[in-house]
Amino acid sequence: MGSKRKKISVIGSGFTGATAALMIAQKELGDVVLVDVPDKENPTKGKALDMKEASPVQGFDANIVGTANYEDTKDSDLVIITAGIARKPGMSRDDLVNTNAKIMKTVTRDIVTYSPETTIIVLTNPVDAMTYSVFKESGFPKERVIGQSGVLDTARFRTFVAEELNLSVKDITGFVLGGHGDDMVPLIRYSYAGGIPLEKLISRDRLNEIIERTRKGGGEIVGLLGNGSAYYAPAASLTVMAEAILKDQRRVLPSIAYLEGEYGYHDIYLGVPTVIGGNGLEEIIELDLTEDEKAQLDQSADSVKNVLKILE
Amino acid sequence: MGSKRKKISVIGSGFTGATAALMIAQKELGDVVLVDVPDKENPTKGKALDMKEASPVQGFDANIVGTANYEDTKDSDLVIITAGIARKPGMSRDDLVNTNAKIMKTVTRDIVTYSPETTIIVLTNPVDAMTYSVFKESGFPKERVIGQSGVLDTARFRTFVAEELNLSVKDITGFVLGGHGDDMVPLIRYSYAGGIPLEKLISRDRLNEIIERTRKGGGEIVGLLGNGSAYYAPAASLTVMAEAILKDQRRVLPSIAYLEGEYGYHDIYLGVPTVIGGNGLEEIIELDLTEDEKAQLDQSADSVKNVLKILE
Amino acid sequence: MGSKRKKISVIGSGFTGATAALMIAQKELGDVVLVDVPDKENPTKGKALDMKEASPVQGFDANIVGTANYEDTKDSDLVIITAGIARKPGMSRDDLVNTNAKIMKTVTRDIVTYSPETTIIVLTNPVDAMTYSVFKESGFPKERVIGQSGVLDTARFRTFVAEELNLSVKDITGFVLGGHGDDMVPLIRYSYAGGIPLEKLISRDRLNEIIERTRKGGGEIVGLLGNGSAYYAPAASLTVMAEAILKDQRRVLPSIAYLEGEYGYHDIYLGVPTVIGGNGLEEIIELDLTEDEKAQLDQSADSVKNVLKILE
Amino acid sequence: MGSKRKKISVIGSGFTGATAALMIAQKELGDVVLVDVPDKENPTKGKALDMKEASPVQGFDANIVGTANYEDTKDSDLVIITAGIARKPGMSRDDLVNTNAKIMKTVTRDIVTYSPETTIIVLTNPVDAMTYSVFKESGFPKERVIGQSGVLDTARFRTFVAEELNLSVKDITGFVLGGHGDDMVPLIRYSYAGGIPLEKLISRDRLNEIIERTRKGGGEIVGLLGNGSAYYAPAASLTVMAEAILKDQRRVLPSIAYLEGEYGYHDIYLGVPTVIGGNGLEEIIELDLTEDEKAQLDQSADSVKNVLKILE
Repeated sequence: MGSKRKKISVIGSGFTGATAALMIAQKELGDVVLVDVPDKENPTKGKALDMKEASPVQGFDANIVGTANYEDTKDSDLVIITAGIARKPGMSRDDLVNTNAKIMKTVTRDIVTYSPETTIIVLTNPVDAMTYSVFKESGFPKERVIGQSGVLDTARFRTFVAEELNLSVKDITGFVLGGHGDDMVPLIRYSYAGGIPLEKLISRDRLNEIIERTRKGGGEIVGLLGNGSAYYAPAASLTVMAEAILKDQRRVLPSIAYLEGEYGYHDIYLGVPTVIGGNGLEEIIELDLTEDEKAQLDQSADSVKNVLKILE
Repeated sequence: MGSKRKKISVIGSGFTGATAALMIAQKELGDVVLVDVPDKENPTKGKALDMKEASPVQGFDANIVGTANYEDTKDSDLVIITAGIARKPGMSRDDLVNTNAKIMKTVTRDIVTYSPETTIIVLTNPVDAMTYSVFKESGFPKERVIGQSGVLDTARFRTFVAEELNLSVKDITGFVLGGHGDDMVPLIRYSYAGGIPLEKLISRDRLNEIIERTRKGGGEIVGLLGNGSAYYAPAASLTVMAEAILKDQRRVLPSIAYLEGEYGYHDIYLGVPTVIGGNGLEEIIELDLTEDEKAQLDQSADSVKNVLKILE
Repeated sequence: MGSKRKKISVIGSGFTGATAALMIAQKELGDVVLVDVPDKENPTKGKALDMKEASPVQGFDANIVGTANYEDTKDSDLVIITAGIARKPGMSRDDLVNTNAKIMKTVTRDIVTYSPETTIIVLTNPVDAMTYSVFKESGFPKERVIGQSGVLDTARFRTFVAEELNLSVKDITGFVLGGHGDDMVPLIRYSYAGGIPLEKLISRDRLNEIIERTRKGGGEIVGLLGNGSAYYAPAASLTVMAEAILKDQRRVLPSIAYLEGEYGYHDIYLGVPTVIGGNGLEEIIELDLTEDEKAQLDQSADSVKNVLKILE
Repeated sequence: MGSKRKKISVIGSGFTGATAALMIAQKELGDVVLVDVPDKENPTKGKALDMKEASPVQGFDANIVGTANYEDTKDSDLVIITAGIARKPGMSRDDLVNTNAKIMKTVTRDIVTYSPETTIIVLTNPVDAMTYSVFKESGFPKERVIGQSGVLDTARFRTFVAEELNLSVKDITGFVLGGHGDDMVPLIRYSYAGGIPLEKLISRDRLNEIIERTRKGGGEIVGLLGNGSAYYAPAASLTVMAEAILKDQRRVLPSIAYLEGEYGYHDIYLGVPTVIGGNGLEEIIELDLTEDEKAQLDQSADSVKNVLKILE
């Protein structure tokens, strides 16, 4: 009996994984285990310790440990996968996909061994295919394997719109379907400022520029940083999904979900509107699409399928 | 009239500066300007943008911009200096001190030009000497130039004690005087768990080990990371000082303060218990020290003076 | 110079006023002065002291004082008016209006004497007419006199919809125009769950029931309580408006605003979508209305005008 | 599996119970069931609904229901008892004790029927005796029946000290043993401002005045309100204890705990320093007392025993 803290394991102690670990701890969602490969065990321990040393000052009670040993993840309530390599200059997309798919397999096997009842959120790119890999390898029901992409895409979109209109980010919403970044299918007609459709507030041309900037949002940060990619907003996006699950909030969030006929697709992971709660993916919300939207979504699905072919 | 957001400028966009910027924005203490040298302007902009893109998801309203132009810091309510180099293998202490002192001078001049009424918190190491440099260069009254070290040292101490006793970090307090790290003078008799003096709960030997670990706390993280140094807990420490000032909280925090006779020292910046509020350093609290504590503090002061000599 | 806490005065120490005072203090928006008539000075002081005694435990730094002396409100950054009587059985509407209008006049005079530059939010019912009274008596520009009603109406609507759909309240939005309660003009086409128009998720009949329940939302609480009326949600609604102003958030919120031609009305206070920020009412957002919506809004406006006639 | 919200039942929907319900919901500690007798079912439902309607605006996800049916408390993770009558003019202490003891019995029986594994926090006065009643009636192990008094007494003490020294409440701590209010045994030597013993900062005479004011703290509010007693700080105190249990924080808090030899007492509930965590009362911390402190504590224990005698 009694109340035990929840346990969240974050696989991959790079900037996104580490930042997600901190944000989860700051919200006192539970204790955090930050996991990386043996080669990175010490830096992982170092980051975890540094975060924990922030806890007295920030006023959160959460244990944070770094490890290379999956035994430490035993009985996790939630696992977040951020492990994987980023595409380097000269690397083919196939190489990236195959390398990360291999990482997903190893990592998933270890997760499942120690936490057979957990829920998994995947961030590793290309996220649709990687979530699919984790799903297959885990043997978990689809409710318990979800990918993140739409929360981040809409966060960027909302940021740009808030800036455009000089309004609070709290009152701007966005809506996307399909893949991440370039493959994103924005539903502007479902995007608002204070409930008012954006189309009434921003010209179509300007909206298109904002959409284009959102599509290239990850690249914009990569270009500015020069070395490395975005991690603050990705980590925040993971955290909001983690919170929805751990606090059983039944939030309406865009997720990479396994489709079995929804929107006309089968055996594929694709970005759709979902309800996220204590059981992970609790519902997929189906919407009527315009012809144009459906065409864009088809293209997005094709793009995912092409990546999946590499995996076979 | 009307209510305007406060403005906080963080000089230095390395990990500590960037993390402090995020934490300040998360708390909606005001809008944040992250500043670095022209060479790092783009990465600085990239980090700021990435953070801002986290705001819709984390639910905070704060503008965050990256810049290399001090004009953007105009009329800051608070400036935090994290700029400076870390000691590299083979670098003499004198080189470190002189390089960072030069950076302090340039940076301070620019800060003062655009925000002559601001308050400055210094983090750059060796922090006692660097705060002194900023004080001299700025021509500001001592109330408006403060250094951070004790909040971090006690945060580490509190973490280790909480772990030792398996208690909430919220109920552990620590108390230090003097310099940062090795030069730290811990006042164990003023350190508690739930108000109970630690000496009643932990053996003297174990306490000494914990003190020693605290002294070497920065080095422990450096050793684990392999490449780089702590930034989460340092950033959190800066944030709590920033909050105390911006919200005029009159918190009792250890700070690096300018002494004019307090504790028997003159014209030196040294770690002492202080009251931090809307006017910056509002009070220095003088305590009776034991002979042993006074001896340790003298040693700490000597150590600071030796560094100051390098500067002359 | 320095950072000073903001000051918020709440006029009327009944349940709504007191609860708003607490919520504002919990958010550390500033120091709070709770004001009531000399007859209630002691209970007002008692409530304020009780709240302040909650601060060490809840961890907020905010002074809260109770008073019957308007001098204590001097230089308030924001004033919230909750003072006034509730309609008692047998009391005519005219009596209610005249009594509260008289209270508005006295109260406003005192506010203006001590805080000529402040912004005022009015809650007292009938709120459209009472806000008008305060506006006229204060001589303030319209930017600095705002009434609350739509935030509360949409809060109730959002609660009922979240319950109906079993979704997080965070993802439900509502949209109203016009007067409070019965006179509310709901814009269902601008109301969503996770961005999806409610009309796609809830049948028209069920939506009508929810709207009807929202209209009667105040009465539902009155009926249940038996003695007294709602105060938690009204206080929360005031707090969100206060936060938008004090943190200069430029939030899109429905407010009772002074119209000078917007939506075709002149010299009247009516509920419309607005941007609330550091300057108070920063913008009125004009929307195209359907004929039916316009007709409802006309009726709402007539209702307000009829009340205003009583005042003359 | 999956993550389910915790469930907290608050017995007694008076001001303290209702305010505690709100504070627990605001912190998203779980869903809240507010329970009162059938006669008050409607007002209880009204308060719960009003609070829930505050949730979209305050941004918390928590269901809050009012009920007179204990079935709705089934499988509570935590139960807080605030039910009971307050002493009315002309009522003897014995009458008060007997009436509230009877209420404790009924209420406890119902709680235990539906939540045999829960933990109970008791607030009803006289709290030491009432906690004892609940303990006996429940048949629960002592770990799962705790009384609140010291968190509130120290909160008041901290408030007065913070005001005296003009310092943040965050940095003031207090320490009490024994009974509530008049029977409180303050340990000033374990009470600090920023870690500095209060005796070094405040004169003994002034401290005695502050202690005396703390002792009479409840009466001060009663006197000011004229009608009713304190509820904000009591509710906040309950909430911090609830949080410590539900988040398994192992906080060091003063609690009314069942003693089996600790401090030399047997078969009595008395205020002592404790560790509160996921298992409820996890530890009683024993301290050496001075003769004077021990004498005061004896008197406090006698006072409790005298009340217990009434119960027999």
